[in-house]
Amino acid sequence: MQLGMIGLGRMGGNIVRRLLAGGHTAVVFDQNPEAVAALVAEGATGAASLEEFVRTLDAPRTAWVMLPAGEITEGTVVKLGGLMAADDVIIDGGNSFYKDDIRRAAELRPKGVHYVDVGTSGGVWGLERGYCMMIGGDTDTVTRLDPIFETLAPGIGTIPRTPGREGRDARAEAGYIHAGPSGAGHFVKMVHNGIEYGLMQAYAEGFDILKHSNSTDLPEGQRFDLNIGDIAEVWRRGSVVSSWLLDLTAGALAGDENLTNFSGFVADSGEGRWTLNAAIEESVPANVLSAALYARFRSREDASYADKLLSAMRKGFGGHQEPK
Amino acid sequence: MQLGMIGLGRMGGNIVRRLLAGGHTAVVFDQNPEAVAALVAEGATGAASLEEFVRTLDAPRTAWVMLPAGEITEGTVVKLGGLMAADDVIIDGGNSFYKDDIRRAAELRPKGVHYVDVGTSGGVWGLERGYCMMIGGDTDTVTRLDPIFETLAPGIGTIPRTPGREGRDARAEAGYIHAGPSGAGHFVKMVHNGIEYGLMQAYAEGFDILKHSNSTDLPEGQRFDLNIGDIAEVWRRGSVVSSWLLDLTAGALAGDENLTNFSGFVADSGEGRWTLNAAIEESVPANVLSAALYARFRSREDASYADKLLSAMRKGFGGHQEPK
Amino acid sequence: MQLGMIGLGRMGGNIVRRLLAGGHTAVVFDQNPEAVAALVAEGATGAASLEEFVRTLDAPRTAWVMLPAGEITEGTVVKLGGLMAADDVIIDGGNSFYKDDIRRAAELRPKGVHYVDVGTSGGVWGLERGYCMMIGGDTDTVTRLDPIFETLAPGIGTIPRTPGREGRDARAEAGYIHAGPSGAGHFVKMVHNGIEYGLMQAYAEGFDILKHSNSTDLPEGQRFDLNIGDIAEVWRRGSVVSSWLLDLTAGALAGDENLTNFSGFVADSGEGRWTLNAAIEESVPANVLSAALYARFRSREDASYADKLLSAMRKGFGGHQEPK
Amino acid sequence: MQLGMIGLGRMGGNIVRRLLAGGHTAVVFDQNPEAVAALVAEGATGAASLEEFVRTLDAPRTAWVMLPAGEITEGTVVKLGGLMAADDVIIDGGNSFYKDDIRRAAELRPKGVHYVDVGTSGGVWGLERGYCMMIGGDTDTVTRLDPIFETLAPGIGTIPRTPGREGRDARAEAGYIHAGPSGAGHFVKMVHNGIEYGLMQAYAEGFDILKHSNSTDLPEGQRFDLNIGDIAEVWRRGSVVSSWLLDLTAGALAGDENLTNFSGFVADSGEGRWTLNAAIEESVPANVLSAALYARFRSREDASYADKLLSAMRKGFGGHQEPK
Repeated sequence: MQLGMIGLGRMGGNIVRRLLAGGHTAVVFDQNPEAVAALVAEGATGAASLEEFVRTLDAPRTAWVMLPAGEITEGTVVKLGGLMAADDVIIDGGNSFYKDDIRRAAELRPKGVHYVDVGTSGGVWGLERGYCMMIGGDTDTVTRLDPIFETLAPGIGTIPRTPGREGRDARAEAGYIHAGPSGAGHFVKMVHNGIEYGLMQAYAEGFDILKHSNSTDLPEGQRFDLNIGDIAEVWRRGSVVSSWLLDLTAGALAGDENLTNFSGFVADSGEGRWTLNAAIEESVPANVLSAALYARFRSREDASYADKLLSAMRKGFGGHQEPK
Repeated sequence: MQLGMIGLGRMGGNIVRRLLAGGHTAVVFDQNPEAVAALVAEGATGAASLEEFVRTLDAPRTAWVMLPAGEITEGTVVKLGGLMAADDVIIDGGNSFYKDDIRRAAELRPKGVHYVDVGTSGGVWGLERGYCMMIGGDTDTVTRLDPIFETLAPGIGTIPRTPGREGRDARAEAGYIHAGPSGAGHFVKMVHNGIEYGLMQAYAEGFDILKHSNSTDLPEGQRFDLNIGDIAEVWRRGSVVSSWLLDLTAGALAGDENLTNFSGFVADSGEGRWTLNAAIEESVPANVLSAALYARFRSREDASYADKLLSAMRKGFGGHQEPK
Repeated sequence: MQLGMIGLGRMGGNIVRRLLAGGHTAVVFDQNPEAVAALVAEGATGAASLEEFVRTLDAPRTAWVMLPAGEITEGTVVKLGGLMAADDVIIDGGNSFYKDDIRRAAELRPKGVHYVDVGTSGGVWGLERGYCMMIGGDTDTVTRLDPIFETLAPGIGTIPRTPGREGRDARAEAGYIHAGPSGAGHFVKMVHNGIEYGLMQAYAEGFDILKHSNSTDLPEGQRFDLNIGDIAEVWRRGSVVSSWLLDLTAGALAGDENLTNFSGFVADSGEGRWTLNAAIEESVPANVLSAALYARFRSREDASYADKLLSAMRKGFGGHQEPK
Repeated sequence: MQLGMIGLGRMGGNIVRRLLAGGHTAVVFDQNPEAVAALVAEGATGAASLEEFVRTLDAPRTAWVMLPAGEITEGTVVKLGGLMAADDVIIDGGNSFYKDDIRRAAELRPKGVHYVDVGTSGGVWGLERGYCMMIGGDTDTVTRLDPIFETLAPGIGTIPRTPGREGRDARAEAGYIHAGPSGAGHFVKMVHNGIEYGLMQAYAEGFDILKHSNSTDLPEGQRFDLNIGDIAEVWRRGSVVSSWLLDLTAGALAGDENLTNFSGFVADSGEGRWTLNAAIEESVPANVLSAALYARFRSREDASYADKLLSAMRKGFGGHQEPK
């Protein structure tokens, strides 16, 4: 079927490529004409403006917005909503906040425009492996778009089947789910990222402990000089902690076990934060997910005000001078 | 080659089976004669006592102790040390504390008996998938035992190679490493388990947030009724959080998404605790690994003294009555 | 000067009493006529409706709203805003969310009505000890209300002066501050409560460790049978951890060291949650404050879904049965 | 009564001074003859060696060791034990690990030498305010030393009595307790310090959130420019978070609210670590106390290996470049 794509960065471009390869057609638009031209060369139909983009699409239209979350996506959705007609569909495939999805769906509903939010995981690997998708929207619309999702998804592949899933929704095994109404897709994706932070931090702390096993803080005779890269590699084979993140870790450590090219300044997208906000709103304890986010905050500070205050208190009660 | 095995529980028994299947021979001993008989029926040579076990083995002997960590393993290693001769090897394949390994190796050294500690991951799946092994001991001994480790390990299998590992120790790709001197094997295995706790807790918190997304604490119109089992399944396909633990989670949720058969009383082995002790000794921050362990502690209490004290303070400053 | 008070619960009533005792006059209103009558008997002027309340106050009016945060306060502020005139002042002395203060101040500004938010600490002890107040609002209005704040505050009392404060705002030493524009008062109070949770949890964990020092998990000969009440008491005298919360703890433990009358179900007001939301918004690591809030969440669950999921995973990879 | 003091640093010297002022006599020894001479000038009897120190003391002797914990204290206790006789008492007033106390008491017992461990809080303020003491040892010995403890303790002072303590051990109200057998004193002191870390970190995080309330991460119109020093001061008056640590904080902030003279490198003594080890041994959740210690660990690292590993993983799955 036909899909319109707005935003031809790495993600948007590759989604179009995977769809074209799967026998679908695409109308594409981007602020950058070169990005449009590149995909036209691969078989897509280009548009020079949002208006032309909408005119070119066959009704009922399906427009996938793949832009940075926040003002850019918001502005595009609003403008698109103005140009589209009843029964058209706007898909937000970016990393929007799920409460924005809920609001946008309600704003578009009176006009009959459907809003679908798609959270995707797989990033740069999606073109090759397929995109793992979590979809929010009304059932009729999500069903109508199924051919697109089916093509984008990884498919059942060679991963062993989960015992006991017979008779349950087959889409999950193919790599996509209809999670619920508008917002549900990004909500599930948001928690996915929260978990991702927690998993990453668990590995990070563990490898940090391994790395410091030759610390002179330790008694002599109780220090080890471990090969961190080999440890990551061996855990990929039959251990309980094997995972795709561990595969990536093993790859990074194979290059340089000391990671000297990394400063350790760790960014975070909004999703880890929103996951904690959701946990707090739901009264769910989330010590691990919180600690994972806070470690990133801390990685971006040289000397925190909190630490300085500790030093000041220590000086106050014990006359302790900072040892450095 | 020949291996002696002491302790024929699930782990010890299956290790013998995998070795026999791989063309090795085995002498076996267990307090329970039936366990011995079962393996004799599968091709092993049985022994009725530790003394007979040692006499039956060809010198230089290799005895693998696969018993519960703590007093039982300790007692067996001591007794075995008394019976063995120079150049014999004692392998502790259980979950001993690495400082005990360091001590035992030192105690056995004057007599010329070698001590090797092997941490294994893979548990009940090892017979089929192979055992992921982290080995501590002196290089000559570990090299001598290589045929055994090679057979027990999963082998390189179908898992994609890690780019950039060319020319590095091939054993890691086959699923076993010589981590360092005595104690290093169990040290690496210990941190492995610490990470495992952290990973598990990251998933647990994330799924808890998903599960509570229909909480009445949330504003109406912002609640979801998610299919938790489908979410676990879809993340297995191309997502960043895919892992073996997630595969297990998907399996558990396919059976009963509400997990009603589980009380939520979560045990912990010593290794998560030792990992934190090591982090503290090394001055490495480990908020995630700590939180994961503490969540298990908390799962085993009905009403903690800490919580009661909070209630008592609240009553003191605000006259708050407990709401329940 | 004259103050109007809406909401004559423990807090509102006692504020009026402290003002009357300090030579001020008060007009009071409450949904419950008996609460009004009680304060009229003590010298206040009563009102039978919000309209009468506003009519009775001398212009420019000052109306202190002391009601539960959320819909009740919101509705009252809106209604009051409709009844009041330019230069009148609405004070919200409850525990409102500071972003609501910012919004309300902006909504009332066109009409010339001033909005002041006052966070108070001291609770049931305020009548006697005075109220510690953090005030947000424009400078002219806060200055105009100074006689009221001065009377309500504890005053400089017998607490030793902080060295080095000479020449700084004297109000802080008297127990109240003008923190900034509307919202700043409740913001500071919010963080105060976040800290309070952290302090309480630090004591709670410490006393829990003391309480468990006779645990049979510990080796024999390394257990203690401590008198928890005496420990709380001794720390009140010259130790680094002395505080008002410790005073309360000592009081609670003097009664029953085992706290058997407390179930350990610990409520939380919104402020601990908002503090974390603020930390997340500001990218400030807050592991301690988060852990303190999550401990309360956890105290209110019998068996968490997260814990059940851990058990399910453990069963999956190791065949572990729950030990209970 | 007579006390011998070994180690005349700030703590040891001031303890002697407070005892002399209280009518006791003292024999003093230190490696540094000038430290001895200084106290002789104030009325103590000096000794030029440990042997002379022991000879000079009247039997049964009481020797207080006030030296850095670890090897120095250990060596002194061992040497002293060799010199002393039945019924003599060795007091370790430093910050020894409680398991070392238990061991030492057992080692000295056959000879009839009593071992008493005294944890003290109050630090540099003790000479003036008195020392808050937690004492471990056998009852007869602790009772015999009571005149010394009574003089050193702050006494009941002007701090309000805790209601409900009538009839309970009066020593707690005077500022010292007999916590239990040898080791119990340092155990209680250890947990005291663990709590201290938690309290400090709770304040540190809260003030960090206040400090960042003008962060440009926040939406315009929702930022505050708070006077941090005034906030610390106002909370000293009637608020729930008032404490001695807050008094110190207010003092530090009165000098320089930005704490520019502090690097934020925060040391930790062993006691915070031991407290966590105890919590782990007892299976008590201690998220707050752990986070407090880990914050100090993290304050001493520029770029942690854990953070670099996060960056490496992020690059692996998303092609993310570090933003700095």
